[in-house]
Amino acid sequence: MPEHISEDSVGLVTPQKIHFNQPLELESGHTLPSYDLLYESYGTLSAERTNAILICHALSGNHHAAGYHSMEDRKPGWWETAIGPGKPIDTNRFFVVCPNNLGGCDGSTGPTSTNPETGRPYGPDFPIVTVGDWVKSQARLADELGIDSWGAVIGASLGGMQVLQWSITFPQRIQHAIVIAAASKLTAQNIAFNEVARQAIRTDPDFHEGRYLEHDMLPERGLRLARMLGHITYLSDESMGAKFGRELREGKLNYGYEVEFQVESYLRYQADSFVGKFDANTYLLMTKALDYFDPARAHGDDLGEALRKVSAKFCVISFTSDWRFSPQRSRDLVRALLDNDLNVSYAEITAHQGHDAFLMPIPHYLDIFHAYMERITVYPLPGLPAIEES
Amino acid sequence: MPEHISEDSVGLVTPQKIHFNQPLELESGHTLPSYDLLYESYGTLSAERTNAILICHALSGNHHAAGYHSMEDRKPGWWETAIGPGKPIDTNRFFVVCPNNLGGCDGSTGPTSTNPETGRPYGPDFPIVTVGDWVKSQARLADELGIDSWGAVIGASLGGMQVLQWSITFPQRIQHAIVIAAASKLTAQNIAFNEVARQAIRTDPDFHEGRYLEHDMLPERGLRLARMLGHITYLSDESMGAKFGRELREGKLNYGYEVEFQVESYLRYQADSFVGKFDANTYLLMTKALDYFDPARAHGDDLGEALRKVSAKFCVISFTSDWRFSPQRSRDLVRALLDNDLNVSYAEITAHQGHDAFLMPIPHYLDIFHAYMERITVYPLPGLPAIEES
Repeated sequence: MPEHISEDSVGLVTPQKIHFNQPLELESGHTLPSYDLLYESYGTLSAERTNAILICHALSGNHHAAGYHSMEDRKPGWWETAIGPGKPIDTNRFFVVCPNNLGGCDGSTGPTSTNPETGRPYGPDFPIVTVGDWVKSQARLADELGIDSWGAVIGASLGGMQVLQWSITFPQRIQHAIVIAAASKLTAQNIAFNEVARQAIRTDPDFHEGRYLEHDMLPERGLRLARMLGHITYLSDESMGAKFGRELREGKLNYGYEVEFQVESYLRYQADSFVGKFDANTYLLMTKALDYFDPARAHGDDLGEALRKVSAKFCVISFTSDWRFSPQRSRDLVRALLDNDLNVSYAEITAHQGHDAFLMPIPHYLDIFHAYMERITVYPLPGLPAIEES
Repeated sequence: MPEHISEDSVGLVTPQKIHFNQPLELESGHTLPSYDLLYESYGTLSAERTNAILICHALSGNHHAAGYHSMEDRKPGWWETAIGPGKPIDTNRFFVVCPNNLGGCDGSTGPTSTNPETGRPYGPDFPIVTVGDWVKSQARLADELGIDSWGAVIGASLGGMQVLQWSITFPQRIQHAIVIAAASKLTAQNIAFNEVARQAIRTDPDFHEGRYLEHDMLPERGLRLARMLGHITYLSDESMGAKFGRELREGKLNYGYEVEFQVESYLRYQADSFVGKFDANTYLLMTKALDYFDPARAHGDDLGEALRKVSAKFCVISFTSDWRFSPQRSRDLVRALLDNDLNVSYAEITAHQGHDAFLMPIPHYLDIFHAYMERITVYPLPGLPAIEES
């Protein structure tokens, strides 16, 4: 392993692509005739194929959850804190799969892909996909990989919603569901923030009704605003205070509109670095998937009823300072799971980092996560002999 | 009184304008050679001129705090709940003055006014004004009205900051300071929200570096976004939930980007109705005044030290669900006031309405506010005989 890559990293990784020819019927009523899913995997699939873990990513995440793509990469994948040898998602034990979601902009088919019907980028013609659609597409990926049942499906934020949907749609194909910093549905406030972000993007004159790529443009202003706003909701008031306080960049007030407070500088930097990397149409459809997710809706707003056929064991984790998906939302989920006599572990981690805490190296959090993952015995599939864990 | 105007309203009111020829030196170092202040007053100034109350408005407020401008007005002034005969700010007892702040867009000199040096609208050339500048300009208004000392200075949010500044700058000219839903300084998160709003306005192509009026344009997109975002921070998650929940406008999902959830409709409506009424440059400078306010800064971040010369009696009110200016910020202020052995009443009102609660007819809040105001005896000025309240 090269020097700057630490021993507990999965190291160099190469994404894989699978093409799916079978049309995918979406909840919106549209059908996607064919599509690609790009994914990464870490660790080794056991002969019995029972040690597989699926990682579901959040709004701005992708398939690159751990390791490095090249020796020149300065940053590892987005969940390097949790995935690797000896880490909570231990690649010495598990075969870990992380796809880029359908509709994404990092290699799986999405708005920046070429629409086979027109030869031009899909852009706004890419259909809105839902959490349910993602789970369906991920199940096909599992089929292709020969994985009948995931040892665990794991995700945080929007990723946690996919985990919950997995437990509902495919109860026999998921042994453990690990739902971190998530909720069973957005609140009106969450939807409101998403709506402001969407309005920022869609009213940018460079958006061109979503066909900006054909105009050789990007709705940079709108995407910058959306990202700045997102960042505020990912952090807590307390963590922003601890990080930036009211510190002035130049030590004095300038009575103008250039950056004065350090927090302004941080937001602008985050926005700038996002704009070149993320597609605006993908941002729009990801926020829609968030808004729509609400498994209880079809059951008279009774979440317990929506979870009736669930059989997975659950680990639910929340963070005290997360005001985007507050601990109360996790407690509501835990309550509905317990009402169904399910096996649930719940940890509410004291952390000042806000929603972003799920990405952070917080020892108490990673220890609990690790302990839960160690309890996962890799179940034999029906008809196969039991495998004993050392 | 006409039928649709209730008995406890001040009724029809007419704003007054005063021109100030004495140049005003601003904290930024700029000087405003002359300016107008538009204000309203309700009630009667006593012969001793000791029953005067100053109302300081918040970000999007103005001088029209109570009553109606014409029989056709559908809505009264912004603080009709608190100002009027028999209300907490009882116009049977008090002479109530509410100016539009300098830099505003409703009649006092501001960015939309004509710059006498160029004959064109000030636009971005209107200097950034601070809470301290406002207080100085309001003191000159008091001079013009022959008011040596206010019985009380009252304000909520950014208005509460002006009240606090009054108690620091002119300790002899303020008997009671009533600070509602405010803070002695913004947090990094507050500044961050303001910065996103400013970026939305300033990056709107129709902003034209602030000279949009000369281009016969308005940065509508930016101002709409700023207002939507503001509204989210004025309400609580709980009150948005109670008001809108996840209710769908058409009862079903449409899988598109038109309004689907009621909360989206509300935000767009609020944004649309704001755009024609409020000036974008004023919005920018108001947010700057908020960011800058921090009386403790000049005293080594020691708020107690900053309040050393304060002598006013204080009433501080906060609302449990206000996450923009949380009760903790009010408690910090109360602590610093008590450290100076000042007379302080503090009420933390249980309310789900968020920051906007200060505008709402919440009985417990108005009762406490009323009770405090009744305790205000209208002090005689030094050298004048005492006036007995009935």
